[in-house]
Amino acid sequence: MGERFERVAILGLGLMGASLGMALRAGGSARAVAGYDAAAGVAERALVRDAVDVACGTVAQALEGAELVVLAAPPLALRDLLRELGPQLAEHAVVTDVASTKAAVASWAEELLPRPERFVGGHPMTGKEQSGVAAAEAALYRGCVWCLTPTARTAPEALAYVQGLVAALGARPVVLTAERHDAAVAAISHLPRVAAAALMLTAAGDPSWPEAHMLAAGGFRDTTRVAGGDARMARDICLTNPGPLVACLDAYIERLRTLRDQIATGDAALAATFAAARARREEWQQARDATTNSKS
Amino acid sequence: MGERFERVAILGLGLMGASLGMALRAGGSARAVAGYDAAAGVAERALVRDAVDVACGTVAQALEGAELVVLAAPPLALRDLLRELGPQLAEHAVVTDVASTKAAVASWAEELLPRPERFVGGHPMTGKEQSGVAAAEAALYRGCVWCLTPTARTAPEALAYVQGLVAALGARPVVLTAERHDAAVAAISHLPRVAAAALMLTAAGDPSWPEAHMLAAGGFRDTTRVAGGDARMARDICLTNPGPLVACLDAYIERLRTLRDQIATGDAALAATFAAARARREEWQQARDATTNSKS
Repeated sequence: MGERFERVAILGLGLMGASLGMALRAGGSARAVAGYDAAAGVAERALVRDAVDVACGTVAQALEGAELVVLAAPPLALRDLLRELGPQLAEHAVVTDVASTKAAVASWAEELLPRPERFVGGHPMTGKEQSGVAAAEAALYRGCVWCLTPTARTAPEALAYVQGLVAALGARPVVLTAERHDAAVAAISHLPRVAAAALMLTAAGDPSWPEAHMLAAGGFRDTTRVAGGDARMARDICLTNPGPLVACLDAYIERLRTLRDQIATGDAALAATFAAARARREEWQQARDATTNSKS
Repeated sequence: MGERFERVAILGLGLMGASLGMALRAGGSARAVAGYDAAAGVAERALVRDAVDVACGTVAQALEGAELVVLAAPPLALRDLLRELGPQLAEHAVVTDVASTKAAVASWAEELLPRPERFVGGHPMTGKEQSGVAAAEAALYRGCVWCLTPTARTAPEALAYVQGLVAALGARPVVLTAERHDAAVAAISHLPRVAAAALMLTAAGDPSWPEAHMLAAGGFRDTTRVAGGDARMARDICLTNPGPLVACLDAYIERLRTLRDQIATGDAALAATFAAARARREEWQQARDATTNSKS
């Protein structure tokens, strides 16, 4: 695909940041990828994994000459990071991020960056339960949906620039507002994460667990898989998207209560409820199979 | 392994029954496998798939000369089936079943079979979301945990006989009471099924669904996978195990409510809750990896 970028800076070299670097390096999409991570030794490990070709000890060093800056730190760390990098950005640098929630990040960028019109929020719909640079892989973004959430102020050329990044990684850009993004991911990503954690704790707290844990098989494994994800990330997601997530949780609890009462009373409507769930899932699966091969 | 059984009758030739027949036939464990299904044409399809070598049009025909009878119909159909087959069983026939709940089936066997001491309830912890004879496979039971739930009345030789079946299929028998079984599977199988159905319906009912469904990826797919299972089976499971399942649902709803309040108030305890869920899941996964390769 040829070099699209002179120098990309990646701030935060966990699963998402390091995978992004590996994909850019493997695809020859950037002349240089500079990486920084707040945790000691991580940038060096990213260098060994060929996720970056410059391991930087400071944010300032990573930003030097970078035309594209990708923030890949946990959501709640982004505010301080934006405050720190604001004064140090190159004049025409475009800034994007890969955090799971978008409205909060957009408001911080608005507040803290000298040129918020050159910030474009992003969220690739991919991942896996393992975290950290060791779990990174160049193919993580291939084929996934990548949300971009420009504001009314965003410069069109900044959006086009980040769309170029998404294209270079083989992902599919979907443009929507931060608010609509946050409502959607609350329903299909954040609610499942909270539901899985609660399910894991309920089963493990049940008096039957000493026997039950031996009997648990693939259904339990899959239904609780996302409870195995990074705990800090899960907290940050909840705390940066509380409104939509609480609304989803209220609706979920209400449905569970209805099902609970149907089960307790032997209500004949149960079969229709399960049939409806199955039908909705099949519709979704078919639409998904037809349009995407996104992961996680 | 050589022939262990002269003639096995399988009543119900869906995923579970047909897979059992295929495994017996492929392993050369039975001289003859006779199969019956209440739905027209199913026994013939099982014959084509080599799941049975005699496709029977009536229960009586399947039972003729059978020393081992396996009931593989949906849970709520087992009562009528037990009533029908009781008077027709060969004197020394041993009867088992593969239903997901055990106390209700045991009480029906007690009530309706002429020799309830020769009934041994069973539940292989395997499956997949596809159902029916088309989804059957000889390897379905290999390595899975197979619960056996004898009562105080069960004849030891009947239990040993069914343990021989489990061994012939390459599965791992776990003996426990029907009550303890039902409490355990409520926590790790039935609750996840209800939780997944409610999650699917909540997401699909959210105002954001038209966009959200495009963004849903692997986390959503896995968390809702068991909502894609057979709706009649899900209903039957709920209606034959209401006590333990309602208790689990109450505990689950309570945990969700606590999490909901922590999210709404930005409670710092959230991180610890997610970390605990992750730790419990890792413990479980490690214990499971060490002892079993069970499926579904």
